[in-house]
Order: sequence, then C-alpha cells, then structure tokens
Amino acid sequence: MSTLELTRSLATTNNTKIVLLVMDGLGGLPLQPGGLTELEAAHTPTLDRLASEGTLGQIVPVRTGITPGSGPAHLALFGIDPIEHAIGRGVIEAFGVGLPVGEHDVAARGNFCTVDSAGLITDRRAGRISTAAAEPLVAQLGAARVPGVEVELRHVKEYRFAVVMRGADLAADIADTDPQINGVVPHAARARTPGSERAARLYNQWIAAAQPILRAQPAANMFTLRGFSGDPRLPKFSETYKLRAACAAMYPMYRGVASLVGMQVQKVTDASPAAALAAVRSAWAANDFIFVHIKPTDSYGEDGDFAGKQKTIETVDAMLPDLLDLKPDVLLVTGDHSTPARMQSHSWHPVPLLLWAPATHRPDRSTRFGERDCEGGGLGTLPATDVMPLAMAHARRLAKYGA
Amino acid sequence: MSTLELTRSLATTNNTKIVLLVMDGLGGLPLQPGGLTELEAAHTPTLDRLASEGTLGQIVPVRTGITPGSGPAHLALFGIDPIEHAIGRGVIEAFGVGLPVGEHDVAARGNFCTVDSAGLITDRRAGRISTAAAEPLVAQLGAARVPGVEVELRHVKEYRFAVVMRGADLAADIADTDPQINGVVPHAARARTPGSERAARLYNQWIAAAQPILRAQPAANMFTLRGFSGDPRLPKFSETYKLRAACAAMYPMYRGVASLVGMQVQKVTDASPAAALAAVRSAWAANDFIFVHIKPTDSYGEDGDFAGKQKTIETVDAMLPDLLDLKPDVLLVTGDHSTPARMQSHSWHPVPLLLWAPATHRPDRSTRFGERDCEGGGLGTLPATDVMPLAMAHARRLAKYGA
Repeated sequence: MSTLELTRSLATTNNTKIVLLVMDGLGGLPLQPGGLTELEAAHTPTLDRLASEGTLGQIVPVRTGITPGSGPAHLALFGIDPIEHAIGRGVIEAFGVGLPVGEHDVAARGNFCTVDSAGLITDRRAGRISTAAAEPLVAQLGAARVPGVEVELRHVKEYRFAVVMRGADLAADIADTDPQINGVVPHAARARTPGSERAARLYNQWIAAAQPILRAQPAANMFTLRGFSGDPRLPKFSETYKLRAACAAMYPMYRGVASLVGMQVQKVTDASPAAALAAVRSAWAANDFIFVHIKPTDSYGEDGDFAGKQKTIETVDAMLPDLLDLKPDVLLVTGDHSTPARMQSHSWHPVPLLLWAPATHRPDRSTRFGERDCEGGGLGTLPATDVMPLAMAHARRLAKYGA
Repeated sequence: MSTLELTRSLATTNNTKIVLLVMDGLGGLPLQPGGLTELEAAHTPTLDRLASEGTLGQIVPVRTGITPGSGPAHLALFGIDPIEHAIGRGVIEAFGVGLPVGEHDVAARGNFCTVDSAGLITDRRAGRISTAAAEPLVAQLGAARVPGVEVELRHVKEYRFAVVMRGADLAADIADTDPQINGVVPHAARARTPGSERAARLYNQWIAAAQPILRAQPAANMFTLRGFSGDPRLPKFSETYKLRAACAAMYPMYRGVASLVGMQVQKVTDASPAAALAAVRSAWAANDFIFVHIKPTDSYGEDGDFAGKQKTIETVDAMLPDLLDLKPDVLLVTGDHSTPARMQSHSWHPVPLLLWAPATHRPDRSTRFGERDCEGGGLGTLPATDVMPLAMAHARRLAKYGA
C-alpha cells in the first residue's frame, strides 16, 4: 500500500486548520565558500522563533539528485508521487497560462515552426520567434473551427502556445506531430490506442483548418503539436485527506495544479505576500487546509538575484505574525524545490522544512530557519511526499494504524 | 527485492549475541515549551555511557505521520513491513489474552451486545458492560459446543472477548457479524471466498449454540463477531535471520507477536525490568537473539504520568550493568513507537534508537540517550524495519552483497 493509500485509509475530520506556506525555489546556496544561503542571510525573526519552538527538517522534492519542474515538485508536496502520477506536457502548458483542462478535454503544446514550399520543416522553432510576433499569430489561429468541438488557444512564450480541445469522448493517447528534425513534413496526429482515434481525427481537422491561416506569415508559417494529454485524474484533497482545501496562489500554473487536486482557488490580486495573506483570510472560515504560494523567491533565484530572493523571504517573515493571528493548528513552511541564485536555475538540493504545531511538535535544537539548521533538524531528511502525512498527523486527523 | 528478502539471502551464522531492548512507547514530548522529554529528563548514566560509546539515531515506526498500534510497530522492529503483513484483529485480540492461533485456526473478536425480543440490536456494546459482569458470561459461553471443532474463549476487557476455533481446514475470509448499527439483527457469519465457507458454517453453528446461553442475561443477551482472522504466516526468525531467538516479555500481546515470528517465549514473572533480566539470563545460552520488552513506559505514557515513565526508564538504566555483564555483542535500545505522557496516547513521532556494538559501532557526537541527541545521531532517521539488518550487520551475520 502506498503512503497515499495508507493516509487515505486513516484520514478523519476535526476542526483543526493547516497552512502549507510554499516559498517557490526556497532552497539556496552561498555565493562564496563559507558564506550564507539566501534564507540564512535573511533577517527572519518570526521564522526563527517558529524554528526554535517547532521542528526542522529538509525535504527531497522528487528523488535525490533530481531537479524537478514546479508541477512535479508541487504534486509531491501535495502527497502525490510525481513519478507515478505524471501530468502531461500539454496539460501543464495549458494550466500555466490559465486554460482549464476538463475531464473530457485534450490539451497539447504548440510550437510555431517554418516550412518550405514542399511543406518540409526548415526551423522547428521558427527562429525562436519573439513573444510580440507570436501573440498575434495565436489570435489569428483562433479563427480555425472544427464542427462538434471547441478549441481554445493561448500564447505561452516565444514560439510556444497551448491548445485545448473540448468535447465529449476525447482521449489523449496521441503521438506528437513534431518529427523532432528539420527537413521532413510534420506528422499527422496519430492515435496510439483506439480510444483516442476520434480526438486524433478532430485534431487533424483542426490542423487542416489552421494551416491556411498561417500560410502567408513569413515568421512562422506552420506549427507542430506535442504532449497531447488530458485530465490526469489526480486524487482530490477532499477524498484523500477529507480536507476542505483552498489555494492562495497568483500564478496560473500553481492555481492549475492546486485545482487538479481539488483545491478551491482563491482570488489573489498581486504577487505580494500581503495579497496572499488577504486570500488566506478570505478562505479561512470555509476551509481546513490552505496552500499559500509565494513566487518571487523562485523568480529572483532564476534571475541570479541573491538580494532580491533574500528580501522576498524577509517580506514573508514580516507577514507571518498576521498569519499566526489566524491561529493555525499546524503551519508548514517550505519550498517546492531549490532555486539557488548562484545557479540561476532550479536545482536538486533538499529544501528547508519548518513544522510548527504547538500542541504536538517535538522541539529540536534548531534556533534559526536556514539550510544548516534544517539539515540537523529533528524531522531528518524526508521525501516531499511525507509533508502531507506529517501535516495530517499534527492536525490529529489520522487514526491509529492497527492495534 | 525487499530489505527482508535481501537480508535473508545474506544471513549467516556465528556465535554472536544480539539483545533488542524495547521500552514500549519510549519516545516522548516535553510538557512545557523548551522542556525535556521523559527520556531526556531521566537520570540514565549507563544509557548515556552507551550513547557516548556507540551510535544514536531515530526510527520511524511505520511511515512518517502514522501512529501505529503495538502489533504493527513490533512487526516493523522485527524487520517485517506491517503494511505488507497485517495481522487480523481477531488474532491480535486472541494473542493479547494468551490464546494461541495455529495454522488451521480462525480467531475473532467478540463484542457483547443487547437485543430486543425481535432480535434487533439495542446496544452494540451492551452499555460497555463491566469486566466483572462480562467475565462470568464468557465462562458460560464455554459450554456451547460444535461437533468436529474446538472453540476456546477468553475475556478481554469490558464488553470484549476473544474466540478461537480450532479444526482442520478452517480459513478466515469471513465478513463481520457486527452490522455496525443498532436496530437490526446481527449478520450471520458469511464467507467472502469459497475456501472459508466451512469455517463460516461452523461459526454459525457455534453462534446458534451460544445464543440460548445468554438469552436470559439482562446485561448482555447477545454478541457479535468481528475481525475473523487466521495465522498470518509471518517469516520466522530462524529462516529469515538464521537466529535462535527468544522473547522476554510479560504481556500476552507481545509474547504473541514474538511467537508469530518464531521466537521462543520465556517465562517472565512480573512487569519489572529485573524479571525481564532474569528471563534474558535463562535464555542466554540457547539463543542468539533476545527481544526484551518493557511495558510500563507505555502504560505511564498512556496515563499521562510523565514522572512514572521517567522513573521506569531509570529503573531500566539501573538494570543495564547486569545485562551488559552477559556480554552481548550487539545491544539495541529503542521503543516500538512514541507514547508522550503529554498526549496520553501513542503517537507518530520518531523513536530514539541506541546502537552499541563495541567491535563495530561508529561513534558519533552524542553524549546522552535522548530525543535531541538521537535526532542528530550518526544513524540518521531510519525506518524501523532497518533495525534488524543493522543488528545483523553489527553481529557480523550478514555476508557481503556482490563482489
């Protein structure tokens, strides 16, 4: 039995409240040998107090050494093994730009490309066409119609866009039309299993309707489709944990993953911790569990902006007393993965974890919320999928296993 | 390959002796923020010396966040994954009161209840009838007979009793007769698979014979049966580890689990550490592995008696020099789970682990046997199922894997 199944079989309900505060890309690295990480350098009096009172640890996002994208990393935090429950590329792309993918929909990622007069691909990424040039093309493609289904499109970035086809009975087991090399014509959409034949045929009809619209465009006169995928049918928080769960996140990608696991998505007006806090407040009464997502830690990390990431952490720390005033029973503070400013990218390093649950936490020797204290913390080094069982246990929402 | 299978494939024999000393419910919590746990508060000069010389760590009983019963928690200590090898409720109840369950037997847990003149259940627990009132009823039920099988009964507590039916060819895949609600008649015992039909029929015959005996009893005029289960056929220590293993435990439940994994159960005269030590002495010559079980740490924890739990630990510490005089090659001191006096219940918190094996242990920086030192100990945080491979390795009883 998986940990998820075990947790589900033991989940009970009560009146406790759990907050999972995720600073995206929280884990970091010192800029110089012997230096401090972004989190260690930050002035965080409240997080340090919670670290002294509670228990620290560090989580491994997916597997040791594996650098995760934000989608898999968040699934793991929600207790779902991202290796067992992969979300298709098309669905991730669609959620990333706020396009919902329902139970009977099929999403795909589109790449603009160029083809010669014989239809052979000359550049699979259309010279990495700029966002400014690509956006109008996506808008024009919206005119392509297929009877019986609805097709929704949204631009992502540069040569990439997302497409979702909606209609009854669509299944997504369809091979990419991208042939992965130049000098050949794009493949037709081809069903890999009989159940997906209808969707493949409709996608081919849509490609045939869309192609003429681009024909005269010099920058990108064709496109390919990849990562056909449907609703991953993830376990929902209400069933798995018997939790009424809400999401306070501003970015579509995180709102998307949260809604895939059944969270109520709250309105968040901007990227500031204050806006996240306001969303938490409005969700408080009607929910048992609130996932709060803070994006700029990751963005500054990706930009190599150590000070910006440090400052974001300090802003979150300053917001915490107001969050604590709501009196959560269990507060977990962590990240989905590390994004060290020094590396300017996601990384595989374990992520600091703070557990504060005054009724049941076991204090360790930690006095600061930072990588070095977390490494020696009382929770040890855990897989990220252990975060939810831990939250449930401290919320007293798990029955005893066996006699 | 599971850890158990790998360990089995590498197990060898020699003359070393292993002692696994389990203080039930050992892990604790401070009563006040910043305070000490029961184990940390205890004056334990010998355990502290062993901690300084040896290596500490902490074990996760079943999975992170999961609070185990004593049965599953002990299975894990014995190297058997309790999620993969669940022991049925009836068997646990039977072992708990010292009723053996053999390979062809089917055990069940009985609950006294009350029924009205139409046979409809009016109280599923017979008003939680007292032990004093229930014991004579169990004795009277002993008169019910079924040709071809033997039925043995024993009272457990209040409205609960255990029943074991012994005879050839009995299988336990039988649904509960307890309908889980008042206002209906108890179900008949119903086989869920063909192989269990004979046992279900015999149980129904026994119920029919037993029912009239209770008919005139005002306190409890009927009973239901739950958790039909047979011998879980657990891997035996002699096969898995090539160890001659003995159990020094006073309580039936622990003696039962130990005998299910093939340990020789020793006579233990009372609950004191001294009585356990006497049992260890008498088992010493003929065994390679001795499991010593100390119950009062858990009982005091359940009672919320911090000082009582602390004192029990001190008594165990005082007994250790005599145990060490026997010259074990490997001594492991741990608990099956945590029972913080503050929570008055089992909990999911990791459990302190001390490994002392002078020929091979790797000293860490620990100087005290307590939660905080264990959290930072050299063994890290381990699943409880790693305790036996660790014991076997330090006893030099595991061959090298691969060339």
